[in-house]
Amino acid sequence: MKSVNGYKKTFAMAIILSIIVSVFFWANMEIVSSGESPGIPLKVKNKLCYVNLKDERSHMNKTTDLKMIYFVTPTYPRPEQVPELTRLAHTLMHVPRLHWIIADDQPACSDIVSDILRRSGLPYTHISSPKPYIYKESNIPRGVANRRASLTWLRDNVQDGVLYFGDDDNTVDLQLFDEIRQTKKVSMFPVGLIGTYGVSTPVVKDGKVVAFFDSWPGSRTFPVDMAGFAVNIEFLKPSASMPYIAGHEEDRFLVSLGLKLDEIEPLAANCSKVLVWHTKTAKYKKPSLKINLEKFNDSPKYGDFVSLLKETSRLGMAYLSSSNGTKTYVIRNRRQYETTGGLL
Amino acid sequence: MKSVNGYKKTFAMAIILSIIVSVFFWANMEIVSSGESPGIPLKVKNKLCYVNLKDERSHMNKTTDLKMIYFVTPTYPRPEQVPELTRLAHTLMHVPRLHWIIADDQPACSDIVSDILRRSGLPYTHISSPKPYIYKESNIPRGVANRRASLTWLRDNVQDGVLYFGDDDNTVDLQLFDEIRQTKKVSMFPVGLIGTYGVSTPVVKDGKVVAFFDSWPGSRTFPVDMAGFAVNIEFLKPSASMPYIAGHEEDRFLVSLGLKLDEIEPLAANCSKVLVWHTKTAKYKKPSLKINLEKFNDSPKYGDFVSLLKETSRLGMAYLSSSNGTKTYVIRNRRQYETTGGLL
Repeated sequence: MKSVNGYKKTFAMAIILSIIVSVFFWANMEIVSSGESPGIPLKVKNKLCYVNLKDERSHMNKTTDLKMIYFVTPTYPRPEQVPELTRLAHTLMHVPRLHWIIADDQPACSDIVSDILRRSGLPYTHISSPKPYIYKESNIPRGVANRRASLTWLRDNVQDGVLYFGDDDNTVDLQLFDEIRQTKKVSMFPVGLIGTYGVSTPVVKDGKVVAFFDSWPGSRTFPVDMAGFAVNIEFLKPSASMPYIAGHEEDRFLVSLGLKLDEIEPLAANCSKVLVWHTKTAKYKKPSLKINLEKFNDSPKYGDFVSLLKETSRLGMAYLSSSNGTKTYVIRNRRQYETTGGLL
Repeated sequence: MKSVNGYKKTFAMAIILSIIVSVFFWANMEIVSSGESPGIPLKVKNKLCYVNLKDERSHMNKTTDLKMIYFVTPTYPRPEQVPELTRLAHTLMHVPRLHWIIADDQPACSDIVSDILRRSGLPYTHISSPKPYIYKESNIPRGVANRRASLTWLRDNVQDGVLYFGDDDNTVDLQLFDEIRQTKKVSMFPVGLIGTYGVSTPVVKDGKVVAFFDSWPGSRTFPVDMAGFAVNIEFLKPSASMPYIAGHEEDRFLVSLGLKLDEIEPLAANCSKVLVWHTKTAKYKKPSLKINLEKFNDSPKYGDFVSLLKETSRLGMAYLSSSNGTKTYVIRNRRQYETTGGLL
């Protein structure tokens, strides 16, 4: 028994060392545009924040030989980021053999994102993938740098499994995971709440995809939403790439795979069911509050309240300032309220 | 052994019979306003659609003696209803000893809601609780009829446990469930993304709630959000009621319980953490599509596509009409598209 344990320990050490080495190299790597927009300086510096290959979910059967699903989520800081990732985590935590890749829009590794990944118990990869400088000013195209960085990590670290792009505000029925896990090349399925048709879907005839029903053709060969397809990682050729062209990310990516119409595998009962929705969360206008926290530091009685205010600011739900912003009040009872500073 | 089994069967039969009988009475019952808006005809006809007391989640320990949490969700039909309830189900499915009460705004029992409840594996109660006629024209106050009907069911059927009002678009951290389960009378905690302060919370001093931080005082004794408190069902007096007054539902309900400020139990590390968020999903404008499905009925080749269109309509994501609405197209390839009817 002792020698088996010895082997196990050596093996574990070897894995840990190789992760550390690859993290080091990757963190210093620069991803260069593969050329679909020549002349534009797309150099960005990505960082691999953390990789956890262990499934730490106690209720989940881990000895299964199911194919791994790599669920790629681009994200960016905003008041809704923590709740979005929290409820998406609750969905993914039900799925066996799922590795969650979150690629964040920020130059630094976000503790907030790390915490959510760690608490999920899922195997994960946390990437910091800031937008190239030239796109800094506009929000479009959103999520491309993140997906490109995730694809690079997959190409360098993963031999097989299934890739799925799932935004942090999408809703996915658990059944979809069972279905996409069987993807041989590229599978497709309907997505609800897209464009002006209510749904975007391939049209299936005799079990084959023959056309698409999507309210924005956009001169696309594959007019589908990012959440409307999954890809077997063995089919991810070195040529696979995603352009910085809003509205054409999905199509150009699928074209770059060399996908042919008759290779598409229709899922969700031959594209007759909706198992994923393009839900969008209403933007919460991040408020600026005028609160002098230093005044509170001298009075530890309200320490919990001050901690909450700091947490609110840390989670990106409000700006706090001692000089600018909305004047804030606390309410003692229905007839009596006073400025927050007046609490002291 | 045989006689023990015999007893078990008799006991199970007795329980099933009493459920059927109470369902029958309840379905024919009318709830009359308890009088906080005298003179307004608040009579509504509620229906108890289904009750399932069995926990059918295979991964969940069911022999625990934890207190039951009754999670009350008002809902109403809209394009986002199915995804909202689906992802909320994914959160609740992680919580041991939780009974989900969904009260729908419709006069009929919705199959769509039933399906989601059944698939969750949770114990549940499905109520149809239409708004009183006088509020039909306005959307405000939303969810009151539903919460009142749920309270009536709880009062008639449940002796102990904890009540929590959770809307279908809220986000709840799993830790909150562990905390509210210990509620003795009424517990309170911060809610993120509320009003213009980013958060709404009780202010705690020396472990006691002494004031509230909420951007809309509204002359309320307890200026808190619906998701900001939980109630021990033993504390739900017969006087407990919720008014049809927008913005005052929470406060009047808590006042009707006879709650005193020093009885409030602060949770979430003395109200210093955010464990629930008032996320709102952006409204998807339900489209009207001009599609003549009858034409397709004659041509079974596109049966799967027709099924999807019917499903889209059934789930409330689009109106379909053979005479009115947006003209729809299908895309054969990037250069060729034709009207949906032209498929044939």
